[in-house]
Amino acid sequence: MSDASHEPVPAADPTTNGARALIRTLVDAGVDVCFANPGTSEMHFVAALDEVPEMRGVLALFEGVATGAADGYARMAGRPAATLLHLGSGLGNGLANLHNARRARTPVVNIVGDHATHHKRFDAPLDSDIESIARGVSSWIRTPQAPGELANAAAEAVAAAMGPAGQVATLILPADVSWGAAPDGPAVPLPARTPDPVDPATIAGAVEALGSGRPSVMLIGGRVAANPELLALAGGVAAVCGARLMCETFPARLARGAGRVSVDRLSYLAEFAQMQLDGTEHLVLIDTRSPVSFFAYPDKASDLVPDGCVVHDLVPPSGDVVAALEALAGGVGASGSDAVVQQPAVADRPSGPLTGESLAAAIAVTLAEGTVLVDEGNTSGLFLAGTTAGAPAHDLLCLTGGAIGIGLPLATGAAVACPDRPVLCLESDGSAMYTPQALWTQARENLNVTTVLCNNRSYAVLNMELGRVGAGSGGPKARAMFNLAETPLDFVSLAAACGVAAERVDTAEGLIAALEWAQREPGPHLIEALVPPLV
Amino acid sequence: MSDASHEPVPAADPTTNGARALIRTLVDAGVDVCFANPGTSEMHFVAALDEVPEMRGVLALFEGVATGAADGYARMAGRPAATLLHLGSGLGNGLANLHNARRARTPVVNIVGDHATHHKRFDAPLDSDIESIARGVSSWIRTPQAPGELANAAAEAVAAAMGPAGQVATLILPADVSWGAAPDGPAVPLPARTPDPVDPATIAGAVEALGSGRPSVMLIGGRVAANPELLALAGGVAAVCGARLMCETFPARLARGAGRVSVDRLSYLAEFAQMQLDGTEHLVLIDTRSPVSFFAYPDKASDLVPDGCVVHDLVPPSGDVVAALEALAGGVGASGSDAVVQQPAVADRPSGPLTGESLAAAIAVTLAEGTVLVDEGNTSGLFLAGTTAGAPAHDLLCLTGGAIGIGLPLATGAAVACPDRPVLCLESDGSAMYTPQALWTQARENLNVTTVLCNNRSYAVLNMELGRVGAGSGGPKARAMFNLAETPLDFVSLAAACGVAAERVDTAEGLIAALEWAQREPGPHLIEALVPPLV
Repeated sequence: MSDASHEPVPAADPTTNGARALIRTLVDAGVDVCFANPGTSEMHFVAALDEVPEMRGVLALFEGVATGAADGYARMAGRPAATLLHLGSGLGNGLANLHNARRARTPVVNIVGDHATHHKRFDAPLDSDIESIARGVSSWIRTPQAPGELANAAAEAVAAAMGPAGQVATLILPADVSWGAAPDGPAVPLPARTPDPVDPATIAGAVEALGSGRPSVMLIGGRVAANPELLALAGGVAAVCGARLMCETFPARLARGAGRVSVDRLSYLAEFAQMQLDGTEHLVLIDTRSPVSFFAYPDKASDLVPDGCVVHDLVPPSGDVVAALEALAGGVGASGSDAVVQQPAVADRPSGPLTGESLAAAIAVTLAEGTVLVDEGNTSGLFLAGTTAGAPAHDLLCLTGGAIGIGLPLATGAAVACPDRPVLCLESDGSAMYTPQALWTQARENLNVTTVLCNNRSYAVLNMELGRVGAGSGGPKARAMFNLAETPLDFVSLAAACGVAAERVDTAEGLIAALEWAQREPGPHLIEALVPPLV
Repeated sequence: MSDASHEPVPAADPTTNGARALIRTLVDAGVDVCFANPGTSEMHFVAALDEVPEMRGVLALFEGVATGAADGYARMAGRPAATLLHLGSGLGNGLANLHNARRARTPVVNIVGDHATHHKRFDAPLDSDIESIARGVSSWIRTPQAPGELANAAAEAVAAAMGPAGQVATLILPADVSWGAAPDGPAVPLPARTPDPVDPATIAGAVEALGSGRPSVMLIGGRVAANPELLALAGGVAAVCGARLMCETFPARLARGAGRVSVDRLSYLAEFAQMQLDGTEHLVLIDTRSPVSFFAYPDKASDLVPDGCVVHDLVPPSGDVVAALEALAGGVGASGSDAVVQQPAVADRPSGPLTGESLAAAIAVTLAEGTVLVDEGNTSGLFLAGTTAGAPAHDLLCLTGGAIGIGLPLATGAAVACPDRPVLCLESDGSAMYTPQALWTQARENLNVTTVLCNNRSYAVLNMELGRVGAGSGGPKARAMFNLAETPLDFVSLAAACGVAAERVDTAEGLIAALEWAQREPGPHLIEALVPPLV
């Protein structure tokens, strides 16, 4: 029997327990959506949803959906959502998309239930070391030991998540801390943290470099890529100085399309990125990191900065990007109105069998103004940047951390954040199968998401990577590991399983008609687009 | 650019590289199946599959399928499979079922690819601290830094995995260690470790306790539960001493059915387990741990051992269970022939609308001899133990660690291990949606698995747990979090999406007919059984 020092605390009335105080504080701090996949130890949190009407609970059938949706929500809402996960195993299931959120610098309040404090010493079957699993993705971790600590911990979690830079803050919630009495009520939300001040010497160095007339690249990311005004300011500097403006390979959010400043993204392929940067003498980093190869290869460099190029880290992700850009623009005598703005340009209406090119053109000619475009098309999305450059203004959300399985959840969260904007998700067969459960949440919440599922019946990127890493073209056993064609996945049936209306197309005309069908009707749609593998 | 001390090693010929040496050593040590979900950093491992014909690569579309299948394989084969996962995020996706494997004491050689050693310092987008994620589930972790270390590391990983007790051994494989030259060839496999010797005083104490005539329970698990001969020996001791023979709540593998010794399992519900153990004065643990409540509750004990009961830990999971049981039997003068053996008993053929009872009866009357029965039916499987007790001899595999989403992968791995035995998986709607991708691997490998998918359109167990934790019956928002009925999942379509033949039934007659259909045809089948929620 449990000894006296480990007696369970009694369950408090739900109007005065820890769970209610936690949710109340989250709502007061602006966090009013929770993407949840709860279990027994989170039952008091779930019950407390009825005590705080402002908090919306969105159910996910798998934790990777909850964490990816929290990422998509915050990228579009500009403030964090909460998650609710079930102990270490639930956190494990959500880890890949928390990794992507960390790389996106997305604020997330990640709540992980745990056994009651008095139960931990028994090492019950579902027990594990949650903090060790959380550490790699979380900049802030806390495990309150008493209900009275919860409100303050929640306020700190929100402040930590907001950064800057945005971070994953993990609050571990023992069951008894959730169910015990927390009579003191909610905490006062903490003020937002002040970003790191700009360094005048760094600004001066960048002003001198960009003014030198030497070949220079301004590489942007983070808040600059996401914000049309900051993008214009950066574009103005580039125009005045004759520098090239580029964007990190996988921005969390990129403002694109007609009326905005168009930027090329650095290529995923290291050899192409090296060509893009070849000859650059000054590289000015603005809310991004110095570019490196995504993977290592036996015969390719990892560091993509050309030999002899000087790197100027104008403002890091934790810095005051507005002040830094304004100081830079002032230094070179530029303003946002100096920027070269993308003119509207409509792609040619494609026809015939679907290919990567015609698929990208079909998306471009039907793209509605204000669309949130989620891209996990991988090899099938290669032509999208080109066809949509002059499309109506839209926001692009990318796979930031390389952990595939983000697209469907990200689109789900973006649609919760932006109920009045269409969300278009370019997804691929391999990636979709990591988190297909997101379709069910889209149906349950009647979210306005259209998924274009590029089915090339292959792990096509691996066919390419096999050669790139110097492993040759592979024998029959190796090639079989990338071939999904002999047991073809049927995504129309998968959508039906989850309550999402779906069609299959294999021509450009068919895809255009299906996209128009999806635009006419509210709610989620899936279009399975049969495309040939790129390689 | 990379400096001289961090130059990439060149890619060796695939006939002499680290990956080939690794796979060769695994095969020589008896590990000849690899459940894989590879990415770019694992391409040399995949290419090397063609260099070692004995190694079978089984592709999974999600890492939780690979790790759960490795668990199911080893539970049935008695030797580990390898996994192949892609960096920390892939490991995260596989973590929940590795947690279950750890709790099952299943041997698993868990191979996680990583960036090349020279690439780590660049903190590329997919980089993370793999060891910290692996630590909670792995008793052995190693990250070889040179190709020449791989063969010995693989041999050690297999030995560590085999225990006893069985363990997850995680071998982290940097890409350049995989592609570099490893000219020394495979290592000599290490001999199996010797189990801990039995402690004569512990044996003597248990002999005295069981011979005392006082109320005693022998609680078995692990290798005893799995092995009919050891089960008979334990049953003989119980019969001679008048002790009760019981099994841990969720055994990894339990030999059951006609001709075997029948044991009751300890209840999942703490209050029922306490009733089962009430009055017990001696509790003899045989390859299992002292029983604790699965979750904590405000008003229930965590430790399930009755007050004043003496616990005898006869043989721990790392111990010599054969020697311990033989010594115990010798001490009390018992043998396996003293055991009470389960007589054949056929359940009544059910009819009418499906319920939990009639579903369990339908499974029992159709159960074929030698079936591997995987149970993740949760609340829908409540009646299965009763109806199948006297069914033809079969093996039962349980959810050991409480991380749901194990059933479909476990069945997949068991079918790979036992191609000549039918595998029947009792699955539930909520749990199935964590790892539905397993159906695709079943189709691709044409595995002889029949899934009975109990669809009650509810997280039924949480409806029950909400009340058990003292959170009342829940308000409308809370109850909505357990209700899957308004957006019903369609598992016949889900099966079709993955290439698995499927039918839907809602009567006992229909279920029997569908089970007979599935038995007539080779390959995977899914039967969606519409059942009412238990609560």
